[in-house]
Amino acid sequence: MNKKIRIVVDAMGGDFSPVNDVLGAVEAAQKDNSIEVILVGIKDKIIEVLDSKNIDHNLVTIVHASEVISMSDSPASSVRTKQDSSIVVGCKMVRDGKADAFVSAGNTGAVATSATFNIGRIRGVERPTMGTYFPNEAGITTIFDVGAFVDSKPNHLLGYALMASIFVENIYGISNPTVALLTVGEEEEKGGKVIKETSELLRNSGLNFIGNIEGRDILKGKSNIIICDGFTGNIVLKFGESFPKFLKHLLVEYSKKGLIQKLKVLIAKGVIKDALKPLDYQEYGGVPLLGVNGACIIGHGSSTPYAIANMVKRAKDIVEKQVNQKIESRIISLNK
Amino acid sequence: MNKKIRIVVDAMGGDFSPVNDVLGAVEAAQKDNSIEVILVGIKDKIIEVLDSKNIDHNLVTIVHASEVISMSDSPASSVRTKQDSSIVVGCKMVRDGKADAFVSAGNTGAVATSATFNIGRIRGVERPTMGTYFPNEAGITTIFDVGAFVDSKPNHLLGYALMASIFVENIYGISNPTVALLTVGEEEEKGGKVIKETSELLRNSGLNFIGNIEGRDILKGKSNIIICDGFTGNIVLKFGESFPKFLKHLLVEYSKKGLIQKLKVLIAKGVIKDALKPLDYQEYGGVPLLGVNGACIIGHGSSTPYAIANMVKRAKDIVEKQVNQKIESRIISLNK
Repeated sequence: MNKKIRIVVDAMGGDFSPVNDVLGAVEAAQKDNSIEVILVGIKDKIIEVLDSKNIDHNLVTIVHASEVISMSDSPASSVRTKQDSSIVVGCKMVRDGKADAFVSAGNTGAVATSATFNIGRIRGVERPTMGTYFPNEAGITTIFDVGAFVDSKPNHLLGYALMASIFVENIYGISNPTVALLTVGEEEEKGGKVIKETSELLRNSGLNFIGNIEGRDILKGKSNIIICDGFTGNIVLKFGESFPKFLKHLLVEYSKKGLIQKLKVLIAKGVIKDALKPLDYQEYGGVPLLGVNGACIIGHGSSTPYAIANMVKRAKDIVEKQVNQKIESRIISLNK
Repeated sequence: MNKKIRIVVDAMGGDFSPVNDVLGAVEAAQKDNSIEVILVGIKDKIIEVLDSKNIDHNLVTIVHASEVISMSDSPASSVRTKQDSSIVVGCKMVRDGKADAFVSAGNTGAVATSATFNIGRIRGVERPTMGTYFPNEAGITTIFDVGAFVDSKPNHLLGYALMASIFVENIYGISNPTVALLTVGEEEEKGGKVIKETSELLRNSGLNFIGNIEGRDILKGKSNIIICDGFTGNIVLKFGESFPKFLKHLLVEYSKKGLIQKLKVLIAKGVIKDALKPLDYQEYGGVPLLGVNGACIIGHGSSTPYAIANMVKRAKDIVEKQVNQKIESRIISLNK
């Protein structure tokens, strides 16, 4: 591929838009001249950020979109009604072949909805899936699905496993990654009908399925990929994300007990901060929405410019490694 | 009630049986002479523990049961086949009016199964529910269900909420406790059909329903009671329990970086241990299985004698506060 990979960055996404989005996009463009970065959003606001930092306008392409989907907007209705929002306009650019990837730190539900309907799905994919990363005792665990859809059927879960395997293999370079199914007990009879049927499908899928695992195994690193319904995955994701904050709360309470406790907590806080670095979402470059017909990366609402730049890099990797083409041909061969 | 409350303690339950079970039962009997503690299990082994500590045999009543359900036995089949196990014999004593409560640190699934089928359900209760506790920023959150059953219907979830409300009100003294439904977004349309219908039922239940909450809210203390399907609850419970261990792993890794890091981690570890004390399951006295026709408390496999004694105390509270009678009359009035 000699052509530049064109990546649309949502300039209006996240809690610190457009500043962090614009600066992150610029950072990505400066680091890598094999990509073209396209900022979509309110043009005046984008230019204001560029000028405030004396950034050359030619580093990025700007596409105006007059509307903004806020973090609190209802995903389904905002995507329907705000047709000139950055999230809708950006996805349609990918659909129309004007870009290869869409990156946003905006309203997660709205990005997933817009990508699914405005970019469209890869041929053969019934449902796209959103994944996330958890550090584990051995490295990184990826969990799919974490909330693109709830009420997944066995066939959907099989699809998530297939897409996740190709993603992890190509993006992390882990060949034949292990896949496990999240449930309430290692015995096969546990977890109800969907789990039982999904186990059966996964066992016969040709994927590296290692069986069922429990909640206590997530952080142990038993499997490269963990598959679950978006309902469970989303609760696990948000519960896990809340733990460092809760720990901080406990430490603050403890430090109130006296001066010695206060000093000890000061030291402990520094240690914990360093020790928890593997949990830092910024390094992972957002989470992928797999199954849509173009790369789509969704970031945390509080993404820093550094995190946004990493998201752009991740989107580029997906395009470059032809993850979608591989998903499509794997599905075709599976259905034969 | 002048009659003593009779509490059966499974002497063969948990990873340190019969030692911890027997010593915990004795501790409970010594502390409170308003209860009669009945140890069920292999008689010789129970006596051996008593004699090793020179404990007066008259402090407890011993009932022999020749079989043992191990921690790794399949719940359903072990309860069916090991009819002379402590878990089956103990539950049948409650069913037959020979005891008021059953307490075990044994195989959780087997205890729940045996209690449901051998003690039987409270009139009007469709499904028993097992709850757990999480500390939160304001105090304690109770979560029901955490694994008694998966695939709960809206009506089951309503039942869990009702039983949990009566339990929390009577055992924790929180009048009109708040109830929230665990799902993937605060908007009502999220979470699928079961969540939508359950929300509707809870809103019209007369319980103090405050709405839907997300995974990130569990540790914040937004609600006294959180209701979810046993599948989700079990994963949340086990994932949450694994976090302190993961944190310890991160600290160990960090301490390997050098001598200064090692010293800092030493201090941090002490602080974290103290700060995490609110997470200590021992203090909570096990988790209740509500809806069975007698008090039933299930403890952690690694329960210490102190934890077992607290479980006995909790079982006594349930009997004394007439939690089951209140559940039954609330269900009758709801169905009128």
